[in-house]
Amino acid sequence: MDFMGAISKDGLNIANKSREIVRKKIKEVLGDKINQFNEKELGIIERVVHATADPEYAKLLVFKNNPIESGIKAIKNKTPIVTDVNMIKVGIRYDNVHCYIDHPKVYDVAKKEGITRAMASMRFAKDLIDGGIVVIGNSPTALFEVIRLIKEENIKPKLVIGVPVGFVQASESKENLRKLDIPNITTIGPKGGTPVAVSIINGIIAYAKDERA
Amino acid sequence: MDFMGAISKDGLNIANKSREIVRKKIKEVLGDKINQFNEKELGIIERVVHATADPEYAKLLVFKNNPIESGIKAIKNKTPIVTDVNMIKVGIRYDNVHCYIDHPKVYDVAKKEGITRAMASMRFAKDLIDGGIVVIGNSPTALFEVIRLIKEENIKPKLVIGVPVGFVQASESKENLRKLDIPNITTIGPKGGTPVAVSIINGIIAYAKDERA
Repeated sequence: MDFMGAISKDGLNIANKSREIVRKKIKEVLGDKINQFNEKELGIIERVVHATADPEYAKLLVFKNNPIESGIKAIKNKTPIVTDVNMIKVGIRYDNVHCYIDHPKVYDVAKKEGITRAMASMRFAKDLIDGGIVVIGNSPTALFEVIRLIKEENIKPKLVIGVPVGFVQASESKENLRKLDIPNITTIGPKGGTPVAVSIINGIIAYAKDERA
Repeated sequence: MDFMGAISKDGLNIANKSREIVRKKIKEVLGDKINQFNEKELGIIERVVHATADPEYAKLLVFKNNPIESGIKAIKNKTPIVTDVNMIKVGIRYDNVHCYIDHPKVYDVAKKEGITRAMASMRFAKDLIDGGIVVIGNSPTALFEVIRLIKEENIKPKLVIGVPVGFVQASESKENLRKLDIPNITTIGPKGGTPVAVSIINGIIAYAKDERA
């Protein structure tokens, strides 16, 4: 088993022991509510708690419109993934991931229109996002732009993982995403971030590989 | 001001508003203990809480042996930084950052000796770590190896940021680091991770730039 990229015995031992503890902590946090989640959702919750050492995420993660199933299918079809920041891009174990935040055109548009680079990068990636997967772990403005593309420009991503972090606008952006009928995974409140986003999408990629094998 | 890489008015507004909230939350968490930290340390704490939306970090961060001063000096001297994972490498705003976890030789050593790749990558980077800066946000075994290099091979980094995340070995590795007389920044307990590591080192890099200007 290649859990969390571990190839050594030490790496596997740590991963397995950690898994046990993580499962126990999730049970403590969720209590009876653990039955509201299916096995695949619980697997994703495990990965997020593993990546953050923060069991509170078991209460914060929300799965809407069968996002895992839609994500697995999209990954099997080699669907492109668009991310808001490069840290997320390099963390994803998949060879069709794109991030345009450092693209010169994105930089120009952001400066000219007075919008964030992350926001401009989503507008720039519009054609990839239509039918694609979006993974946002940092920028609420990027997520607001994806929501706008969906509502106003009829763009239809197969999955939006929207877990921007922060005390300003992050909660609101995720709340707005949850209202759409697009498959989405979010967190409630200000928490989120790169490890949360990466562990969710890598979990879905791992499911897609398992089903393919 | 180029706070958190924001170049747009939107980006700056979010960053400034967030800063206010973050400062308030840190005060709530620390109470009178806020006076134990100097201004630069509080700046780093702010960045970490900003990056995680988790005010608990104000209670978890530990600064030992003047790590910020040592780090600023090292950055001004263009000292190399070694990281445990690529996600941290790409998040750091500095042009002398190295990560060897994907190096073929590191892969071979890890497999042959049954150790983690992160651990093998620190051994591989020994010469850079001597007099260098280490930033570990994920792998406890990488941090244990750096501690071993310091104790057994007389390697002397200018600064070790050791914030591996996880329920297995992470706390212990950080506890061991705090016992050394090397400048170090750690978190108490299992919490830590990529955004914590990146926000700490980027804060120190920002201080170094400010002082240079």
